[in-house]
Parts: sequence; C-alpha cells; structure tokens
Amino acid sequence: MTTYNANTFYDELVTHGLVVPAGPLGAFGRGRVFEDVLEAFDALVVRTAAKDGVESMTFPPVIDKMIIERTGYMDSFPTLCGAIHSFVGNEREARALSQRIGQGEPWGDALGQTDVVLNPAACYPFYPTCTGTVPEGGRHVTMLAWVYRQEPSLEPTRMRSFRVREFIRIGTPETVVQWRDHWLDRGVAILKSLELPATPDVAADPFFGRGGKILAAGQIEQKLKFEVLIPVISLEHPTACCSFNYHQDKFGSAFDIKLPNGDTAHSACLGFGLERVVMALFKTHGFDLAAWPSGVRKRLWP
Amino acid sequence: MTTYNANTFYDELVTHGLVVPAGPLGAFGRGRVFEDVLEAFDALVVRTAAKDGVESMTFPPVIDKMIIERTGYMDSFPTLCGAIHSFVGNEREARALSQRIGQGEPWGDALGQTDVVLNPAACYPFYPTCTGTVPEGGRHVTMLAWVYRQEPSLEPTRMRSFRVREFIRIGTPETVVQWRDHWLDRGVAILKSLELPATPDVAADPFFGRGGKILAAGQIEQKLKFEVLIPVISLEHPTACCSFNYHQDKFGSAFDIKLPNGDTAHSACLGFGLERVVMALFKTHGFDLAAWPSGVRKRLWP
Repeated sequence: MTTYNANTFYDELVTHGLVVPAGPLGAFGRGRVFEDVLEAFDALVVRTAAKDGVESMTFPPVIDKMIIERTGYMDSFPTLCGAIHSFVGNEREARALSQRIGQGEPWGDALGQTDVVLNPAACYPFYPTCTGTVPEGGRHVTMLAWVYRQEPSLEPTRMRSFRVREFIRIGTPETVVQWRDHWLDRGVAILKSLELPATPDVAADPFFGRGGKILAAGQIEQKLKFEVLIPVISLEHPTACCSFNYHQDKFGSAFDIKLPNGDTAHSACLGFGLERVVMALFKTHGFDLAAWPSGVRKRLWP
Repeated sequence: MTTYNANTFYDELVTHGLVVPAGPLGAFGRGRVFEDVLEAFDALVVRTAAKDGVESMTFPPVIDKMIIERTGYMDSFPTLCGAIHSFVGNEREARALSQRIGQGEPWGDALGQTDVVLNPAACYPFYPTCTGTVPEGGRHVTMLAWVYRQEPSLEPTRMRSFRVREFIRIGTPETVVQWRDHWLDRGVAILKSLELPATPDVAADPFFGRGGKILAAGQIEQKLKFEVLIPVISLEHPTACCSFNYHQDKFGSAFDIKLPNGDTAHSACLGFGLERVVMALFKTHGFDLAAWPSGVRKRLWP
C-alpha cells in the first residue's frame, strides 16, 4: 500500500536523481529523467489540443510590473509576488555595495525596484497584448512558462519556481465557460489516461488575510475555480495538478479588451502544473520508469 | 545587399509575428515560428554533443543569492543583477501597500530582499552542487536556462531575459582548456553549417567602472574569453551568439571543488545565446522560413 510523506518523498526524489538539491527552498534543480517525463507530458497535452486551432507563444519569466498593479495582484496575494530590484549608482556607491556584501551585511536596501516582476501566473503577460477589440470568435492561446510564488517550503510540491502549460480563452461568457467545462473533462481524462487517481473539485485561491476568506467563499459559491487533485504527499490533502479559472470580465476590464459587439471580453484559463504532474507520476507508478505500466509509457512516448 | 539597422530589425520581427511586444524593454514575447527555430537549433546543438557523455540538468530562473555573493558578481557587474524582493507584513501593512499601489506611488521600499536572485549565467547554480571532490575525469554537464541581465535596451539582441544552451566542464586545467578549444571549433562549425557568417574572436566581459577596464584587458591578454560573432543589427559590430569562458580556479575556489588529487578544480563553460542565434538566422536567411536554403532547413529539421 502506498504511504504518503512529504519529507521522505523529497529525499526519494533526490536519491533517484530526479531532483538536484539547491540552497533556496522550492527552487531546486531537476535531473534528466524528471525533465524527460515533464517534456513528454507537456507534449501529450499539446497533442491533445492540436486540432483546437490554438495559437502558441512564449513569454519570459519576468513581466511588466504594471500588470501586477492594474490587476490588483498585491491586494489579493501581497506575500507571493517576487519583484525585481537592481542597483543604479556610481563607482563610489558600487564600491560601498561590494564592501557590504563582502562583510556579509544585508544589501537589499541599496537596490531600487525595476519595471519588472517575476510572472506569478503563466497567462498574465498575454492579456495586455489583447487591448482593443478581439476578432470574432475571440482568442485562444497556449504557452509554457516559468512562474514564481514567494512561499518557501520544505514540501517538494510547494515550489517557488515551476513550469505551467497554460491555455487561455477570450470571448463571450458562454464561449469561455463552455470551453472551461470542456477542458475540465479533458484535463481529468488526460491525467486518468496516465492511470493517475485524479479527481476534480471546486477550489479557491489563497487570498491574503481576513478579507481573503470572504473572497475565497465567493469564488467557491460562484464556481469560478476548479482544480484536479492527485495524492502526492498526502492522501487526505491531495495536490492540485491542474487549475481552471473563470475570470469573468476581470482581465477584459483591466486591459480594455472588447468583443466585436462592444462588450467587455470575458476570459478563462487553465494550467497544468508540470512538475506536480511529474511528481504525481513518480509517486503513483514508482521511481523506476522502466517498471511503469506499459499503457502509461505508450501514452507519454507514443 | 543586406543592410543592418537595430530599429527596423525589431519592427520586422514584430511584423512577421516572431516577436510579441510587451511593455518592458528586452522582455518581449516570442511567437510560435521563433520558438520552433529556437527549439530546432537547441536540438541540433544537443545532438552534436550526444556522444560526449554529458549529464543534463535543469535549474529554475532564480538561484541562491549566496552564489552571487560568494563569486563577487556585484563587484564586477553590480548594475546587471536582478534581485528578488518580496513583501512580509501584517494585514494593516498589506492594506497600506495596496493603497500606495492604487494611488500610483512607488512601492519597492515596502519590500525586503529574499534569498534568491535571477540567474545571470546558466552555469551558476551548478557549481555549488559540486562542492567536495569531483570524480576522476571531472564533471561535464549541460543545461538550458533562462538568464537575466538588467540592461534595458531598444536593441532587439540586447535582451534582459533570454535562454542559453550551456555546457560546463570541470577538471584539470589541461582538460578544461582542451575541451574549450574543441568546443570553440565545434561552435563555429555548427553555426557555419547553418550558412551563418560566424567568426570567433577574443573577448572581454562588460566589467563595471574604471577598475573594470583593467580586468577586461587582463581577460583579453590571457585569452580567457572567446565569442563567436555574427552580424545581426550591425556589420561593424557583429553580435556575440556564442560565448566561451575559462574561469581558471574561480568557481573551484569559491565553492571548494577539489580534484581527486586534492588540487582545486578548474572550470570552463560555453553558452549559445539561443534567441540571438534565431535572430541571426532570420537576418541572414530572411523572414520566410520556407525560402531558407534547403541545407539549412535539413540541418535544423533532419
């Protein structure tokens, strides 16, 4: 019988060369076999969507700070944002900075905030590119992105820096909700086809503070967020490996995205947490890839 | 005859859907065809090295701040580092932060420095994993990583966030220099096989300040750095698309990496600037992939 334990699971990932330890919590390296499985799973998802006519693009791990400001990200998740600060100064100031670092002193206050932050959600950089009127039928795009959440943890599925395969739909409320529902079924089906014990559930974002509890309750009541859960480090608290969000007109309003009829566009997105899916596969099927069920291997490497 | 111009080249990349504009300088998105070429070139490099017995691993775009501190990065490149700052505070402080952002005020001073920085060079996170004694024969690894340099520019090849295919060799001085020389020839050969006008040259890092000029002169005199250059936005100032660095015992000393005989290990690395190579291909062969020389297409998509 499978037992679940966050600490021993991390150690096992390291022992099997799947994780390469690095100092900061949640920012470890990945070994070659881990990456092979991650790429194969990502390719399976992209293949599944191949006939949807989805556009593909790639954004860097840093995005415009303006996106965070205009969407109220810091109202909801103030502790999760990683902002990029840098040094601007003359040679004298640079020498003073070097000296502080050499003496082991803190040096963050010698830096100033830049115009970029780490991308907290793969879809964020896409919305500002849609300002204006979207074509009849809306937009439908996919991307793979490194995202960042400032929540250091020893727990291996709680990473700070990880990859998401994201799909975004922009259109009328009916279009995007129908699309979200279709992908919810499809996401569960993809994970089950890999013989993973995946179950969908209504979910809420980890909004900050007491006010956040009310926001989370509203999100659950309106069924704006779903997750697909798989036990990885706990049977009672399975891990969200895929997440579906209906934003209503939040991004359409923030970035002035209009439908051809003049209405503000609605949007929805879904993302597979690629490292979490890989960890779910190793947890479920064991650390020896050669011993995985042949059906699973054939799905990943057809 | 090909003409070179940084501004028109950026506009052409956008017009052809290769670059997706985003607000911050040097952090734009990439379109699908751009990514297809980038992945094909990366695969060509990896294929070329397939018989070398090189280990593969992947690190996130953020690394331990300690690496920057211990290698003296801020002495040499203080303005290029992107440090990650985050908010730690109670609900009252979070509300005050939200309010400042809502009023369009600066908010960087409400954040504090974390234990991670953006990775400035693909190889950096690898060295601390080698602390101790390396095996007989040393280490030989490769990785693809997103790196960051805080140098905002309108010039499209001068990106802040970009990808590097990196190879690292750790061993005796003879081993790593011989390896570097072999890869210098091989790097030029790979680029020339794509009918790119690639030429190698001795080079120096952009060390900061007046003291930096002396460091750069020493680097050139000792031939510690080479680059492979291709005209992309200027014929007179061709773009470095591949860079080779012999570090002597810099990283071996910083991270206490020993050879089996007890000597401090030497290291060298090389990196292909993947976006720059893709831009060089479009500049050299034109924006219509279908019209590229058939030999080039066959090398990229065998």
